[in-house]
Amino acid sequence: MLPEEIEISQNISVNIQAFFNSSDYDKVAVLVDENTRLYCLPLVHKAIKPTDIIEIKSGEEQKTLDTCIHIWKELTDNHFERKSLLVNLGGGVIGDMGGFCAATYKRGIDFVNIPTTLLSQVDASVGGKLGVDFLGFKNHIGVFEDPEKVFIDTKFLNTLPARELRSGFAEVIKHCLIADASYWEMISAVDFKDQNWSGIVKHSVDVKKKVVEEDPFEKGLRKILNFGHTIGHAIESYFLQKDEKRLLHGEAIAAGMICETYLSAKYCDLPESSVKNIEAYILKTFGRILISKDDIEEITLLCLQDKKNEKGVINFSLLKDIGNSVFNVGVEQNEIRKVLQLYAQH
Amino acid sequence: MLPEEIEISQNISVNIQAFFNSSDYDKVAVLVDENTRLYCLPLVHKAIKPTDIIEIKSGEEQKTLDTCIHIWKELTDNHFERKSLLVNLGGGVIGDMGGFCAATYKRGIDFVNIPTTLLSQVDASVGGKLGVDFLGFKNHIGVFEDPEKVFIDTKFLNTLPARELRSGFAEVIKHCLIADASYWEMISAVDFKDQNWSGIVKHSVDVKKKVVEEDPFEKGLRKILNFGHTIGHAIESYFLQKDEKRLLHGEAIAAGMICETYLSAKYCDLPESSVKNIEAYILKTFGRILISKDDIEEITLLCLQDKKNEKGVINFSLLKDIGNSVFNVGVEQNEIRKVLQLYAQH
Repeated sequence: MLPEEIEISQNISVNIQAFFNSSDYDKVAVLVDENTRLYCLPLVHKAIKPTDIIEIKSGEEQKTLDTCIHIWKELTDNHFERKSLLVNLGGGVIGDMGGFCAATYKRGIDFVNIPTTLLSQVDASVGGKLGVDFLGFKNHIGVFEDPEKVFIDTKFLNTLPARELRSGFAEVIKHCLIADASYWEMISAVDFKDQNWSGIVKHSVDVKKKVVEEDPFEKGLRKILNFGHTIGHAIESYFLQKDEKRLLHGEAIAAGMICETYLSAKYCDLPESSVKNIEAYILKTFGRILISKDDIEEITLLCLQDKKNEKGVINFSLLKDIGNSVFNVGVEQNEIRKVLQLYAQH
Repeated sequence: MLPEEIEISQNISVNIQAFFNSSDYDKVAVLVDENTRLYCLPLVHKAIKPTDIIEIKSGEEQKTLDTCIHIWKELTDNHFERKSLLVNLGGGVIGDMGGFCAATYKRGIDFVNIPTTLLSQVDASVGGKLGVDFLGFKNHIGVFEDPEKVFIDTKFLNTLPARELRSGFAEVIKHCLIADASYWEMISAVDFKDQNWSGIVKHSVDVKKKVVEEDPFEKGLRKILNFGHTIGHAIESYFLQKDEKRLLHGEAIAAGMICETYLSAKYCDLPESSVKNIEAYILKTFGRILISKDDIEEITLLCLQDKKNEKGVINFSLLKDIGNSVFNVGVEQNEIRKVLQLYAQH
């Protein structure tokens, strides 16, 4: 069963319309980027009837306080008040940043998320983690706050470039690896382009929701969702600073999951057959990122800035087996360097 | 009885030391301005043993996102993590802004407030309203979040200029007017310089705490704390933009309370004798701010930006009698203009 705040449908306009019929907002702004304005807004414009459209440029490099200032200014100029609503129509950047702006505008107005990428549908839409990047660190400034509603329509996935779709698929893989071995067997038997997205989105949202409901503020269990992300975020942050090689979030996380699979073998006795199995399917789907020896040093240092870092020990969430994960596994810096070397084949 | 998160004492170092003895923070930064660094930090430095001191310039005009960026950068550069603590040592600006920075740094680290002004001791220390000014609007960007602890020492009041002390006294007056007629009789019989601050701080914290506990997110009852603040904030915002006439918060609120006392007579039948009584004591204590005819127009417009504004109607919290307040009283724009004219004697 999906919780009622998240509605998944093949024709989400009907659900959106019902939501607005039963609510009483004086103003409604839709936050879009140039892509979602063109490809997604037409599908829901009639249901939302926005009083304002706020457009930002697409891309992770826009996820900054400067863009927040633009959004806050638009809300202010249009006299948004506590009974007004912000609808975030787009991927994770729009959802995380728009949610953060809403949660902090006049100490919080309501917001609704309509995630349009696979990544945001299976990940960012659930769990209330909002924020922006700061000084090159991912999601460094933010809050926890839940949207009033999340409307998911897998129809939006047809508007995505294949590379974007694949990026989101990394989180699908993660949800299977940390919590559901049989679903992993199912998806890993099929090429990513031929997956059943409707079923996959429901499954992934369900896995994430169960974990988050048990531990909303990441005191314990929720940390398992960080599998692949400690090293993955460091890789993502590192290449974000270097203009020549732009990685999508899921591409960095895919590499991070391989590295943390190696760590799982060393620290949690993940069987060798599972290591090979995970490594092979992720490499087949995502390929291998070129990482130089110099890169490895800097990525290792970036891992120390991770939010899961306590008193200098870097805490990882790792796999005991496929579908079975643990958190708070302390890992030394040098072991991070080693698995990056193994991944990069240096 | 005061709630245990707020500790009031004449020798707060003992309480602070006990707090640190029973907690487990890996790093502790103290946020100060040049005044609290000089006059207040020496009184608590030994008890806190900070690993870092973050200094900002004093003054409401520093309560901006730019200053937040400086604070977030300091926390980042010093590798603050989720188990680190920020101690806000200063007035309302330090508490509101430092709390906002802590509540949003890595999606929230713990913070402790040690309010050093009367205003922050009786008002900002309770209630979890955090934030900064934006585009000239007061507390426009912020969140609700409670500190781990508030330590209040009335000894700090000795370090204040008389004008600062008087500014805080405006909130003391407000707490009496909205909730406690007998305490109003007591304080209004005495010149502000001769008040018993220790008793007053306890009383004011108690009034505010009771209201906030019943309605933490300002859905209803908490709005009574806005008495004097709808017009008062507009006056404060207006003069903040004009460099030549710097008003302290309480000075603007004092003028706002007089204006809203006039509104109370019109909308809530506040007896004429009470109007005279309130007006006389506030004018005797604070004097009258010079407001021109042009100022009145702009201040009236600024009231429309108030957070308590719903669908263009401006909601006020007003007095039915001294000690008896109501909220959500809709007031037309023209009536705001009229009471400003009455106050300014145009």
